[in-house]
Amino acid sequence: MRYLQGDPHALPRGRAALAGYRAEHFLYAASDGVATITLNRPDRKNPLTFDSYAELRDLFRALAYADDVKAVVIAGAGDNFCSGGDVHEIIGPLTRLDMPGLLAFTRLTGDTVKAMLACPQPIVAAIDGVCAGAGAILAMASDLRLASPRARTAFLFAKVGLAGCDMGACSILPRLIGQGRAAELLYTGRAMSAEEGERWGFFNRLCAPDVLLDEALALARGLAAGPTFAHGMTKKMLQQEWSMGVAEAIDAEAQAQAICMATNDFHRAYHAFVAKTAPRFEGD
Amino acid sequence: MRYLQGDPHALPRGRAALAGYRAEHFLYAASDGVATITLNRPDRKNPLTFDSYAELRDLFRALAYADDVKAVVIAGAGDNFCSGGDVHEIIGPLTRLDMPGLLAFTRLTGDTVKAMLACPQPIVAAIDGVCAGAGAILAMASDLRLASPRARTAFLFAKVGLAGCDMGACSILPRLIGQGRAAELLYTGRAMSAEEGERWGFFNRLCAPDVLLDEALALARGLAAGPTFAHGMTKKMLQQEWSMGVAEAIDAEAQAQAICMATNDFHRAYHAFVAKTAPRFEGD
Amino acid sequence: MRYLQGDPHALPRGRAALAGYRAEHFLYAASDGVATITLNRPDRKNPLTFDSYAELRDLFRALAYADDVKAVVIAGAGDNFCSGGDVHEIIGPLTRLDMPGLLAFTRLTGDTVKAMLACPQPIVAAIDGVCAGAGAILAMASDLRLASPRARTAFLFAKVGLAGCDMGACSILPRLIGQGRAAELLYTGRAMSAEEGERWGFFNRLCAPDVLLDEALALARGLAAGPTFAHGMTKKMLQQEWSMGVAEAIDAEAQAQAICMATNDFHRAYHAFVAKTAPRFEGD
Repeated sequence: MRYLQGDPHALPRGRAALAGYRAEHFLYAASDGVATITLNRPDRKNPLTFDSYAELRDLFRALAYADDVKAVVIAGAGDNFCSGGDVHEIIGPLTRLDMPGLLAFTRLTGDTVKAMLACPQPIVAAIDGVCAGAGAILAMASDLRLASPRARTAFLFAKVGLAGCDMGACSILPRLIGQGRAAELLYTGRAMSAEEGERWGFFNRLCAPDVLLDEALALARGLAAGPTFAHGMTKKMLQQEWSMGVAEAIDAEAQAQAICMATNDFHRAYHAFVAKTAPRFEGD
Repeated sequence: MRYLQGDPHALPRGRAALAGYRAEHFLYAASDGVATITLNRPDRKNPLTFDSYAELRDLFRALAYADDVKAVVIAGAGDNFCSGGDVHEIIGPLTRLDMPGLLAFTRLTGDTVKAMLACPQPIVAAIDGVCAGAGAILAMASDLRLASPRARTAFLFAKVGLAGCDMGACSILPRLIGQGRAAELLYTGRAMSAEEGERWGFFNRLCAPDVLLDEALALARGLAAGPTFAHGMTKKMLQQEWSMGVAEAIDAEAQAQAICMATNDFHRAYHAFVAKTAPRFEGD
Repeated sequence: MRYLQGDPHALPRGRAALAGYRAEHFLYAASDGVATITLNRPDRKNPLTFDSYAELRDLFRALAYADDVKAVVIAGAGDNFCSGGDVHEIIGPLTRLDMPGLLAFTRLTGDTVKAMLACPQPIVAAIDGVCAGAGAILAMASDLRLASPRARTAFLFAKVGLAGCDMGACSILPRLIGQGRAAELLYTGRAMSAEEGERWGFFNRLCAPDVLLDEALALARGLAAGPTFAHGMTKKMLQQEWSMGVAEAIDAEAQAQAICMATNDFHRAYHAFVAKTAPRFEGD
């Protein structure tokens, strides 16, 4: 930020690089500013467990302070994205918990989504094959979604005796695909086809399975090229304005955008335009 | 609920069965847990009157306590859904009312929509032919909507000198089809074709006129098969989160879903999965 | 209003006609109750400047009190709508402003959008060719949007190092086209094609370039034919209910519509219906 240029050490930054992070319950890799999370139990279609939920939550929370990651891709190993909460490792144990234990679990899963929304990096989901239950939620909570034509996305909570209100689905899904289509998916638990998902605005684009991950990475690399500070502000405001009145939202954006106009990246873009070159953003 | 199993009489339930209810101003029938409301003045395309508004409001309020109804279908007799407020029986008298009288009427109609939203049963509208004015509102306030290709849905308030803000239309319709399309329908009063309605997310599906009611009943029977308690929670949260911030919505869902995880239906689904059978939900 | 008929002078009206208004920084014309604003620097694709922002803000504020304008069309001269904030006259100077200066600018632009939302006249945007940056915002802030097939709409703030949260875009755009599509446009700055815009609900309709303005004027004239008071109430409630709970929105509409039922235009529509003629609205 321009205002801090005189003394870059005047304010503590508190940033911690994630380079070298080794994930325990999924694959994690990073290059060119893009972190890739790969759910990796392909024999079971990449289900989630208590441990992988908790590690995802902690990773996304750490990303909020990680200067070396500018965008995130989340994908599944093999030909599927994620089959959701493991029946044996999650559903079974849940049937034996008391209410405080149940609430601890639903708050863990909700906190995972909140951490995805709160980190400043745009998250691109690459969705092939099965995308079910908590897997559909991870897709929904991402910022952008690419899918292959064989993606089948099911908010199947009703099929296991539960409500559609899981990890924010009754709030987020209607904003993505409309209240009526969301209601159908949440009440019936039926799968949304890839074609429906694109037509309804859930998927930004469909890609052939063999190029899906490459396309997601290319999109993420484009976002990682910046302007990183501004992208983080866009993400912040998309959440912060969720339930604001429209006039209040306009006022909040006046302040948010004035902050972005004080960044060097804004100046770089202007000078690049005048020089008829492409801007090179540096994130400050 | 599991927590009440020890003593099912410990808490008053206050439930009143609707079996045997005889409607005065429309047709009412119930079987297999599905109640069917049929607006029934086909010679006038099933208009609403002061009396039918009030009976609909009271019926939906009673449904909130009716254990024997799990889903609702609303349809029109003949080849039309509903032509809206009757010109001679409603519009004419309204022109002679003073302000307290006018407000009593608009609050009656608004209360009818609020009762539709507040009852825990999902409501499936089956829409053929004319669906206009208050008829379009009844469709909009339902949870799911099937239509025939000849359905013509018009929020025609502007055509009778009124505003589009009728019974929640300026809040609900934009969430179904988007703010820009809703604005056009509400300002111009023009009819939305069935094809537009499907493409825009107002209708969940189009069906041939001769199978429309059967399809709506089949969809409702599927919902009536449960999980009934969870479906009621889904419906509750879809309304309750309407104007919540996204983080607050996620927190609210953590609590709502934890409650659902304490139901026997959740346990039944798990045990059915382990036994490789289909779950049979019982609503507790 | 019926309640004021006994003494039309009992309440001050404070209305000021805009007939004879001569715009300085764009073209302004009015006929048949329709005001047409034409951004008019076609050699530069009609960019905005500090002056044209301020004059637009003041004009839309004045429209809130102008009885002689019932609908507004906004268009661009030549084959383009608007290229946004001028790089030399706005972007350059912004890079030299301090924070109070930046905030004064973003509040000016936000106030322009707030004035568009606050005036009671429906605004129809006619969009051909380039529709970029602040131009895309003017289109977004209109009530209805017609476009030619060659319209290219880009919320290109990210391309100049800024965030997508500009003049309400993070709040309004998701309500028009869905949260996921809005996120893509705001993060990437890529252009939305006319076909995408129609499919996603941004554009109400596409028209051939040579009839685009005529179609927009015809739509505006239809709205200008009334009911003018009711249209203003529809516009008011579409904003006022933005972040209301659904039950509160229904209650607010009961009051708003009761007010409209006390207008003479409502009575005129009823009597015209009984007489089997078309109503002629007069705005009171």
